[in-house]
Amino acid sequence: MSNSLDRVLKAIKPLDKSAMAAARSRQDNLTKPQGSLGRLEELSIQIAGIRGEAVPKLEHKAIITMAADHGVVVEKVGNWPQEVTAQMVHNFLRGGAGINVLSRQVGARVVVVDMGVATELKPHPELLSRKIACGTKNIALGPAMTREQAANAVETGIEIIDAEVAKGLDIVGTGDMGIGNTTASSAVCAAITGEAAEKVTGRGTGINDKQLEHKVRVVKRALEVNRPDPKDPVDVLSRVGGFEIGGLAGVMLGAAAHRIPVVIDGFISGAAALIATALAPQLKDYLIAAHVSAEAGHRLLLKHLGLTPLLDLGMRLGEGTGAALGIFLAEASTRILAEMATFAEATVSERIT
Amino acid sequence: MSNSLDRVLKAIKPLDKSAMAAARSRQDNLTKPQGSLGRLEELSIQIAGIRGEAVPKLEHKAIITMAADHGVVVEKVGNWPQEVTAQMVHNFLRGGAGINVLSRQVGARVVVVDMGVATELKPHPELLSRKIACGTKNIALGPAMTREQAANAVETGIEIIDAEVAKGLDIVGTGDMGIGNTTASSAVCAAITGEAAEKVTGRGTGINDKQLEHKVRVVKRALEVNRPDPKDPVDVLSRVGGFEIGGLAGVMLGAAAHRIPVVIDGFISGAAALIATALAPQLKDYLIAAHVSAEAGHRLLLKHLGLTPLLDLGMRLGEGTGAALGIFLAEASTRILAEMATFAEATVSERIT
Repeated sequence: MSNSLDRVLKAIKPLDKSAMAAARSRQDNLTKPQGSLGRLEELSIQIAGIRGEAVPKLEHKAIITMAADHGVVVEKVGNWPQEVTAQMVHNFLRGGAGINVLSRQVGARVVVVDMGVATELKPHPELLSRKIACGTKNIALGPAMTREQAANAVETGIEIIDAEVAKGLDIVGTGDMGIGNTTASSAVCAAITGEAAEKVTGRGTGINDKQLEHKVRVVKRALEVNRPDPKDPVDVLSRVGGFEIGGLAGVMLGAAAHRIPVVIDGFISGAAALIATALAPQLKDYLIAAHVSAEAGHRLLLKHLGLTPLLDLGMRLGEGTGAALGIFLAEASTRILAEMATFAEATVSERIT
Repeated sequence: MSNSLDRVLKAIKPLDKSAMAAARSRQDNLTKPQGSLGRLEELSIQIAGIRGEAVPKLEHKAIITMAADHGVVVEKVGNWPQEVTAQMVHNFLRGGAGINVLSRQVGARVVVVDMGVATELKPHPELLSRKIACGTKNIALGPAMTREQAANAVETGIEIIDAEVAKGLDIVGTGDMGIGNTTASSAVCAAITGEAAEKVTGRGTGINDKQLEHKVRVVKRALEVNRPDPKDPVDVLSRVGGFEIGGLAGVMLGAAAHRIPVVIDGFISGAAALIATALAPQLKDYLIAAHVSAEAGHRLLLKHLGLTPLLDLGMRLGEGTGAALGIFLAEASTRILAEMATFAEATVSERIT
């Protein structure tokens, strides 16, 4: 195990119980019936425990969107050409993608990372070039990457979050771009949860019934050919994962080590969370599931993680778009905690019985 | 029927089909798989149809929070003293309530209206004093208000939204404050939907099983004593409703007449929507259900309205807090529509098959 991963795994501590108790006590004294803001109250208490502060503020926000390509696209698992991954990276950098729009609305910066796009991308001041390789190999024939590349991908995620924390960061969202990455994520999900390929393989960007049958067969073949070891998350990542999946797992682990709440997006971020929580089970407490995506396996994946999604809007775009909406709700929860008046401050009577 | 209500009912037109077709066509050309932003896409198309614009902008936002008292509180239907209604109005005006916090976050102004608080409130530059009476009468013994007062309440809502539109308004949310108003709303809901009192009566601010049984009996008695006529929404409002419920119905109708989308909050706003849509069935297309509240009858109420809530966060505070979150999602949907690049603009390849 590498040094930075080892350091991070040791640095992830339990939530701060006393900050949580203080946050709960404050919620119970705000001018509203106790519990009447439902999950927003619980969310604020979780964030208090993560940050180790009774009244946390979420001022600095970022979405880290990692892009990579997948060799499995040669199996024709989807309807979009591989070149779209690179084109969408340029779209992110020009501010024209869904994640740019929603991040602007919620006041989050977007950090775009090339973790392994198949082609060389033109340098751009806002593009982090951290290419592990020009796309993974075809998982239907053999491992996606070497074990060393898998460890590098996770470490790269840790380095990126370290740098973002140094710039100022109170909450982070995860996002992905990669043609073919729902196939890799389905294989990761099947490997770690032990669920059948049929249950965790979905329509991705929109394939028909016949294509879905084919995609399930490809996922099964990837599992048979590679036999990923569910007890060894880095093995799972190297055999059937992807560079962005590994990078996002590193982001999650590194964020938790810094006591930063992590808002996870859809199915690909979920696959990264499966790997990351298999490495560090205590990470789970630092995760906020933004939404349940329309992708078939996502609900099951979240159940395995023990997370209840905040939103269910039929979204399946990725990029971090769901995470951006989740960051808004997280901020709403902490603003409620910080800004609402208490009964005493507002001289409002409390309940009689 | 009064002049302003009559004018408004005639002014509510069907959604603009050509604006909706243009919005759908634009959504389908934005750089994402078609439909991949799920309900956000549908929401943007609905708002295009409401505003009559292919690419609507939601710049000016308001939450109208109406407060009133309810004579039925003498039946001990809840745990909070009646004085809390007035105290919370002051809390709204000082900016310390939940609705103030969330409205600040989403950039909406809060319009606070005294529709019938039991005590005289100190004048405040930001308080609209439109008191119909100092609280309704006890619906367990007779009608809540006269038919004239009911019509006045609805007209007042229409006048208030007219004034807000004159200041600039692109979307409005509804909110309520009134100790005892879940009891009145349950009676309105039972009267209009024909559902049993048991099904539409909930725990309000948090009553126990025994108190809930008592509250159901009070709702039943209100229906038996008053026999509201479900075919005459103003009769239902006058017999078992409330001044804020009538005012919010007027806000909804007036907003639709101005082609302004209406984000409805929880159970009390839902009761107002039942009355308003009974007066003008075409209003339904102008409504956006922000969330399903934890209040027992709300899911059933929304089903009767044919609306699918955007959020399900276990909230039950009222004030417009759910509506504020709904306004955020509505704005997200229109920003996506307006700000995302098309495939052609971003030179991103489209799907192959």
